[in-house]
Amino acid sequence: MILTVTLNPAINLTYHVEALVPGATHRVSRADKRLGGKGINAAAVLTQLDLPAVTTGLLRDGPPSFTPIAGPPRRTVVVTDGTSATSFREPGPVVTAAEWAEFTVSFARLAEQAKVVVLAGSLPGGLPDHSYASLIGLARSAGCLTILDTSGAALTHGLTAEPDVVKPSATDQPRLAGRALGRTIVVASDGPNGLTAQGIRARPPHLSGNATGVGVACVAALARGLLLGTPWPALLRDAAALSAAASNAGSVDLALYRELLPQIEVEHL
Amino acid sequence: MILTVTLNPAINLTYHVEALVPGATHRVSRADKRLGGKGINAAAVLTQLDLPAVTTGLLRDGPPSFTPIAGPPRRTVVVTDGTSATSFREPGPVVTAAEWAEFTVSFARLAEQAKVVVLAGSLPGGLPDHSYASLIGLARSAGCLTILDTSGAALTHGLTAEPDVVKPSATDQPRLAGRALGRTIVVASDGPNGLTAQGIRARPPHLSGNATGVGVACVAALARGLLLGTPWPALLRDAAALSAAASNAGSVDLALYRELLPQIEVEHL
Repeated sequence: MILTVTLNPAINLTYHVEALVPGATHRVSRADKRLGGKGINAAAVLTQLDLPAVTTGLLRDGPPSFTPIAGPPRRTVVVTDGTSATSFREPGPVVTAAEWAEFTVSFARLAEQAKVVVLAGSLPGGLPDHSYASLIGLARSAGCLTILDTSGAALTHGLTAEPDVVKPSATDQPRLAGRALGRTIVVASDGPNGLTAQGIRARPPHLSGNATGVGVACVAALARGLLLGTPWPALLRDAAALSAAASNAGSVDLALYRELLPQIEVEHL
Repeated sequence: MILTVTLNPAINLTYHVEALVPGATHRVSRADKRLGGKGINAAAVLTQLDLPAVTTGLLRDGPPSFTPIAGPPRRTVVVTDGTSATSFREPGPVVTAAEWAEFTVSFARLAEQAKVVVLAGSLPGGLPDHSYASLIGLARSAGCLTILDTSGAALTHGLTAEPDVVKPSATDQPRLAGRALGRTIVVASDGPNGLTAQGIRARPPHLSGNATGVGVACVAALARGLLLGTPWPALLRDAAALSAAASNAGSVDLALYRELLPQIEVEHL
């Protein structure tokens, strides 16, 4: 079983407007609302792949697998006029030490049922930078393989626990290049040139998929590959195809994915 | 007692950002949240004037004086960089016939305790244009004076019930000019030139107050004047001073109000 962790979920609101004009009042013709966060979105993609994942994290009024916290979830408002998107990200809630302690107990229990754990997204306020390192340690003790997908200080400190796979953000990639990361395999994105890892490059024939969904689709493919024990060349091909087929933050175009899969160019660097 | 009605309350979120750039992702440094709507805001101003008002309306999870409805309240997001404000207004909930019937019963009961009723703001979806006319009829049966502050079709249809005072929006003012409105007294705003009603103009010495609060402060002053039976020249002077002292959507600068009051120029046109 794959377990995905979202410590800082967001309620994603999409506001459809005619045109965004700074200083003006806009009537929102439609407001779409969904719960998101990288771990939650990766689980949605895995469900599309018929590999339902268990999701956990910190969330007020969330499903039972989440640990409830007092602070309200952050909201992300994306204003779109059909062509471009302008987004506003609220600061998240501040998590208390007691809430975090309760979560780690729940996480350790869930990890015992899992084979692969995906730790994705930012850390909410109140949590120390090494929070992902603690969870990676617990997951490893439970016999799980781990994938870390975060950025900044949460990434730097998380890496000290040597997750099995890391997918750094584009911003963080350069500073990881050439660093010794112990057992950790780095999966780097090279935009339209695809993915590289383990001295292999997997390049899709087209431009990459939907910008907000590429990273999540990649992580979902990596989690499936680790669960199934797929060897790296095939795994990277799969991840490149699924990334390029991302249609949204938490979904992929399965027909496009199947079409792309044999077209991915895999080369040893 | 003054009763204010808000049929379409909004949760007002103010997002503080460094600078609004269309197409960019913005980290919101602070998100302020308050429940608003013209009637609710007018009641807040009346509370500042030591004349606490009862507020009612339609609202999920609202205070007991409101009739609960199933639909969630609309949100209004105002993005500000400290100098300019860009706002996004969600569509409101759709009110059912049963919810409206329940509200009218509750409203009729509350109106029996009131002397003045303020009906302010837009109508939510599901309510017919003549909804304010129905409430004005009920309020009059209960012996109340009524003030209507709305726009468009809700205003046109509301006027058929001849509220005692109407404060049309700037957009609607021209089409009411010169029309016979029965017993209704029209209070028109003339921007920096103040207010006119009953052949009187009350003009403040300064530019008008905070743009989002001017109308609400004016309505609060009119409600107080009707309750106290203040004669029109004095009432209009008071309304002009309180409007010019508006400091926010639901508050006034009381010191400024007291300073402005004797400086208002009242003339018979």
